Amino acid sequence: MIERYDSTPTQYAESKGTNFAFRRFGKEGSVPLLLLIHFRGSMDNWDPKLLDALAKNRMVIAFDNKGVASTNGLTQETYGEMADGAAEFIQALGYAEIDVLGFSIGGHVAQELLFRYGNLIRKAILASSMPQGGKGLTNSKPEVIALATKRVIELTDFLTLFFEQSDASQKLGRAHIERRSARNLDIEPATSAQTMEAQGKARKAWAEMDESKGLANLRRVTQPVLVSNGSNDVMLGTEQSFLLYQNLPNAQLILYPDSGHGFLFQYPELVAEHIRIFLDQSFQD
Amino acid sequence: MIERYDSTPTQYAESKGTNFAFRRFGKEGSVPLLLLIHFRGSMDNWDPKLLDALAKNRMVIAFDNKGVASTNGLTQETYGEMADGAAEFIQALGYAEIDVLGFSIGGHVAQELLFRYGNLIRKAILASSMPQGGKGLTNSKPEVIALATKRVIELTDFLTLFFEQSDASQKLGRAHIERRSARNLDIEPATSAQTMEAQGKARKAWAEMDESKGLANLRRVTQPVLVSNGSNDVMLGTEQSFLLYQNLPNAQLILYPDSGHGFLFQYPELVAEHIRIFLDQSFQD
Repeated sequence: MIERYDSTPTQYAESKGTNFAFRRFGKEGSVPLLLLIHFRGSMDNWDPKLLDALAKNRMVIAFDNKGVASTNGLTQETYGEMADGAAEFIQALGYAEIDVLGFSIGGHVAQELLFRYGNLIRKAILASSMPQGGKGLTNSKPEVIALATKRVIELTDFLTLFFEQSDASQKLGRAHIERRSARNLDIEPATSAQTMEAQGKARKAWAEMDESKGLANLRRVTQPVLVSNGSNDVMLGTEQSFLLYQNLPNAQLILYPDSGHGFLFQYPELVAEHIRIFLDQSFQD
Repeated sequence: MIERYDSTPTQYAESKGTNFAFRRFGKEGSVPLLLLIHFRGSMDNWDPKLLDALAKNRMVIAFDNKGVASTNGLTQETYGEMADGAAEFIQALGYAEIDVLGFSIGGHVAQELLFRYGNLIRKAILASSMPQGGKGLTNSKPEVIALATKRVIELTDFLTLFFEQSDASQKLGRAHIERRSARNLDIEPATSAQTMEAQGKARKAWAEMDESKGLANLRRVTQPVLVSNGSNDVMLGTEQSFLLYQNLPNAQLILYPDSGHGFLFQYPELVAEHIRIFLDQSFQD
């Protein structure tokens, strides 16, 4: 059993001409936890401290969807099609049931998985996400939109977008970057311009959806869902997480102090502990 | 060490003519956790399953404030004065620092403790509470107000006010009542008409406070605070917990599925586990 994400090599799973790049490690015999990363992120954007903590109790699987980083093909232009890609990957690995943790646009893909492939999903975690029709980013401050859509974002931009402006949050953000940068094995290529453009189109299509239909879709989800965010998500909006929670019939909401969009990279051990409890418990005690 | 609340006898602590009734049990050597109960509640209104779970890791202290149930004197007419009473009790026991869990109006008293006796409080949990000036209950549906202010509430009223209308929530509510009713040792007398009237005046005074000043008071609190509620608190309003969270500088919010005002009696072990993590952790991981 591999215990550290940094020591987990990249593998490939083939399905209909796509060679999905993935990394799998952690506790054997558990329902696997599939991770869905943020805008233009690859497997190298996860915090190894978060994943190592999760892997103590779960089999954890990171992967690149079609066209992203080490996976061939073209990145899809809607979150629904990205959910199709994720489901294809899950089936290529032979799993009949998984849990899913979607972060940022990965949370939107996780919602589409719940809507389209409910039978595959046992429980879901939506981190820094929003409903269909949500105007997160669209309604963000102009300087936030400018930073978030730069072709190449610098570490200082990342610290502004993903963490709070307090000294404490910025310091924990820099510690995250150090952890993320320590990896030496099977380093990912940068995500492509096509990935950024396609995901940008998906973002626009999501924002243009009918919010009332999006909320109605959420109200049909029967699975337990954990909704989480930081206290001040300047991109997608913390109140959008409250909205997700209010419309999901079986949801728990956890919001963290002095943090932003990247809260799960700021408090990796605390978040992993809350996720462990959520995934293990029956809600009937 | 006593391990079960049901086996914990009532003791008394004297201060300036008041004999405070209290029950103390749990783990020696920890920062004690003081419990503040809801409207017209006594020590017998706590769920022994919740307290037993908390007591595995903390010294847990339930008490009756002035004039309530087994404590002599008159019940005070503002939450601020009730905080004075709680602080007097803490000092009578000789503690220089405690954690506090306030439920419903107990959460309002806990806020006043943070405002008036900040040095005494290390961390606070506000369960089903609201800020000063909050219109919870005042703005509730007429039938809810009628039930909540009846002189004697029946178990069916309690199930309506504290739990959701779903079968699952009602079933867990009945299980709570069974647990609460199992105690044989040092049974409390019913709370008096004076207690109900005084607490009713305190409720009115709280609702009439200036909300903007109440939020400003919250923004000056430096302690870590865990804010919690059920998904549909028909008395105080779940969105009031979001408001508390947004205005407290160092707060975590946890909201539970398919539950109401009495969520902590519905999911006692899950809530106790979240409280344990909150009380133990440093928020800097």
